[in-house]
Amino acid sequence: MVIANLLPLAAEVSAENGSLVLAAVLLNLVVIYLASKLGGELSNRFGFPPVLGELVGGVIVGVSALHLIVFPDKDPTGSTSLIMQFLQLTGGLSPEATPQVFASASEVVSVLAELGVIILLFEVGMESDLRELVKVGGMATLVAVVGVTVPFVLGTVGAILIFHVPNIPAIFAGAALTATSIGITSKVLSEIGQLSSKEGQIILGAAVIDDILGIIILAVVASLAKTGEVDVANLVYLILSSFGFLLGAILLGKLFNKIFIGSSRLFKTRGNLVVPAFIFAFAMAYIGSAIHLEAILGSFAAGLILDETDEKNELQYQVVPIADLLMPAFFISVGAKTDLGVLNPAVPANREGLVIALFLITVAILGKVVTGFAVFGEPTLNRLAIGVGMIPRGEVGLVFAGIGTSSGILSEALNAAVIMMVIITTFLAPPLLRWVFPTANPSSVKA
Amino acid sequence: MVIANLLPLAAEVSAENGSLVLAAVLLNLVVIYLASKLGGELSNRFGFPPVLGELVGGVIVGVSALHLIVFPDKDPTGSTSLIMQFLQLTGGLSPEATPQVFASASEVVSVLAELGVIILLFEVGMESDLRELVKVGGMATLVAVVGVTVPFVLGTVGAILIFHVPNIPAIFAGAALTATSIGITSKVLSEIGQLSSKEGQIILGAAVIDDILGIIILAVVASLAKTGEVDVANLVYLILSSFGFLLGAILLGKLFNKIFIGSSRLFKTRGNLVVPAFIFAFAMAYIGSAIHLEAILGSFAAGLILDETDEKNELQYQVVPIADLLMPAFFISVGAKTDLGVLNPAVPANREGLVIALFLITVAILGKVVTGFAVFGEPTLNRLAIGVGMIPRGEVGLVFAGIGTSSGILSEALNAAVIMMVIITTFLAPPLLRWVFPTANPSSVKA
Repeated sequence: MVIANLLPLAAEVSAENGSLVLAAVLLNLVVIYLASKLGGELSNRFGFPPVLGELVGGVIVGVSALHLIVFPDKDPTGSTSLIMQFLQLTGGLSPEATPQVFASASEVVSVLAELGVIILLFEVGMESDLRELVKVGGMATLVAVVGVTVPFVLGTVGAILIFHVPNIPAIFAGAALTATSIGITSKVLSEIGQLSSKEGQIILGAAVIDDILGIIILAVVASLAKTGEVDVANLVYLILSSFGFLLGAILLGKLFNKIFIGSSRLFKTRGNLVVPAFIFAFAMAYIGSAIHLEAILGSFAAGLILDETDEKNELQYQVVPIADLLMPAFFISVGAKTDLGVLNPAVPANREGLVIALFLITVAILGKVVTGFAVFGEPTLNRLAIGVGMIPRGEVGLVFAGIGTSSGILSEALNAAVIMMVIITTFLAPPLLRWVFPTANPSSVKA
Repeated sequence: MVIANLLPLAAEVSAENGSLVLAAVLLNLVVIYLASKLGGELSNRFGFPPVLGELVGGVIVGVSALHLIVFPDKDPTGSTSLIMQFLQLTGGLSPEATPQVFASASEVVSVLAELGVIILLFEVGMESDLRELVKVGGMATLVAVVGVTVPFVLGTVGAILIFHVPNIPAIFAGAALTATSIGITSKVLSEIGQLSSKEGQIILGAAVIDDILGIIILAVVASLAKTGEVDVANLVYLILSSFGFLLGAILLGKLFNKIFIGSSRLFKTRGNLVVPAFIFAFAMAYIGSAIHLEAILGSFAAGLILDETDEKNELQYQVVPIADLLMPAFFISVGAKTDLGVLNPAVPANREGLVIALFLITVAILGKVVTGFAVFGEPTLNRLAIGVGMIPRGEVGLVFAGIGTSSGILSEALNAAVIMMVIITTFLAPPLLRWVFPTANPSSVKA
């Protein structure tokens, strides 16, 4: 009485490949964590924001240097990937199975990176308090709007007129200039004891509004790029739907807050906070992507509408370790995909790309420095400090670069130029901020 | 002066598919979280362990019922997946792209589930305190060894002799009977105020030793299955390397502990605890998999050797939300992959499978109940209570089922029988435990 359906399936090749894909993902994550932690810590040690070191760490392990983290856009078969070679040496990976395992593992790492940026924007949304914004009010809005408009217009028009970049990538490069990293600025302001100064409050308020405007611009631009042309009717739809989506989310926010608080109190088992919160964040991310905007707009909205409650504070605390494990996949991937070789000045063909990079960096700095001078009245205000505080692009600029590259909008040189812009602005901001606040009262507070 | 390499790449089909893969993964995660949270909470409400409800939730959304979470082993093209149909309806997925997007998204969900079980075993390892074990000492070891040997031998020999199951799947089914879920038992013991009773301490000690023995058995059996035959030399290598790996990890533990404590104090940026810990856990998981054992043996060892320090306590706290987001992918996948239809008694061909399931359940219960009576001396001991406390298989039994299915060792009917065994033993344990502790002093302590 041998029972046919109790016989085991023939040892499947796919099952064996499956455990090799897991092994490859584990190795990728180990390299990603080592690069991000070492880079972040070294950067912090020298007084720079950790995200800068993570990005540089990514460049070092990526296609520009060590070839540990390589993606199929640069190497379709994974033959140059050191991780694949290590897996052949130690993990029993055969050369024949390598392309398949490499493709699957890269897909998984890419999705982990995308989940990382979705969670990053969920955190940024939670940190942005809509009611606080109303207080700083007019001046912050003015600073933000000027700081978005000037770099965007100068960057886009300059790229088209001076460098003859096609419309869509030019608009994308211009849009990448708009963001301000609230994380980096608030960290430095807190270190020099200027977080609660009037200038500090205006900078933070404007940075939050910048985030919101920047994400809307990103959603619009990334969506334009999918159709490949600038169609006025489509542009109007995208701008209206982005604002409508955010406004709708804010209006429905009260309802969601009730559901969130209710379920977290009703639920008695583990994960009573994070699981409902991530159901909401991921569902909103899906809706954002389904209506042809961006997934991150959805998770940002989900974070934005969470009311200030004990549950939210505990949730923020619990999201930190989750973000710590997923965000490095994003930052390191962005760095690893960037081929800085295209900006090598020794190669004559690269020089025009370098000129564009210099142009973008100049516009990125000047376009933000002018913002302080847009504020009228208030004669005692340190206008230069406000402008300088808006300079660092940090993680939000990287989101632009990451989405630009993965959607194929940005050419390699333009992508490298945007990454250089992010690195340089983020690198300059901390020393410049310390310099423009001469009366600063240095404190050793660390966030 | 148009610059060639600044031109955008042609809008790539793969980039478009990439964002659809992300959308599919987001939908999968939303369904996974809904099923696991609703299942877990309902189960908890009725006095059963949450993991039971999560498993049943997985069965409901899986191939047995709703067809929301479907894997390529049952449906290679994803045509029956409701999530794919929803994505075609709302997310702009074309029928032509469906098989590719389905395969990629399934791959990602599978790796997330595997990362979930790696983190689960890392947590179990951290909860297992080697020094506490030494105190309960002899009696716990006796109970554990009996509780592993009796079900393993009875299950394997019975499956081969009575049901003519081939050797490897029979050994695997026998091995799946060995585990004891420390989580479920300790939860119930704490609810009825028996956690610190002598019986409670013996049960917990034995459950920890069971975990260690069970994981070694799993590593050996899963590895045997890869070669497809029981080779004595290979068997000796596997048993020795499993013990050697664990012992080596414990001996090198002091060194790792120093590195872990040192780095977490040296590092000043976010993730100073979780990132080094996960570098270690994932590296150990890779080593476990590379030496032909199992990845989970590595992460278990990584958790086991962490010394009791302030840093470990904080790490355990931070790992909880990470596990809460990744473990549901594992529990729901195991349930979703299980086709309970193969145990439907209305179909005559299924009846022999059902008989095996009944046999496994009987062995699973009796093989553990006898363990209490193995303890000699100690006339006042509630021997029945000890045996009953060892009955629930819970998450560790599911790890066996999950690995058995994904490696193709267990046939569908045998897999369904193992899942039924896990469900029934886990379902029976809480009421039985309350019944065999008649003098119980009920407390409403909830873990």
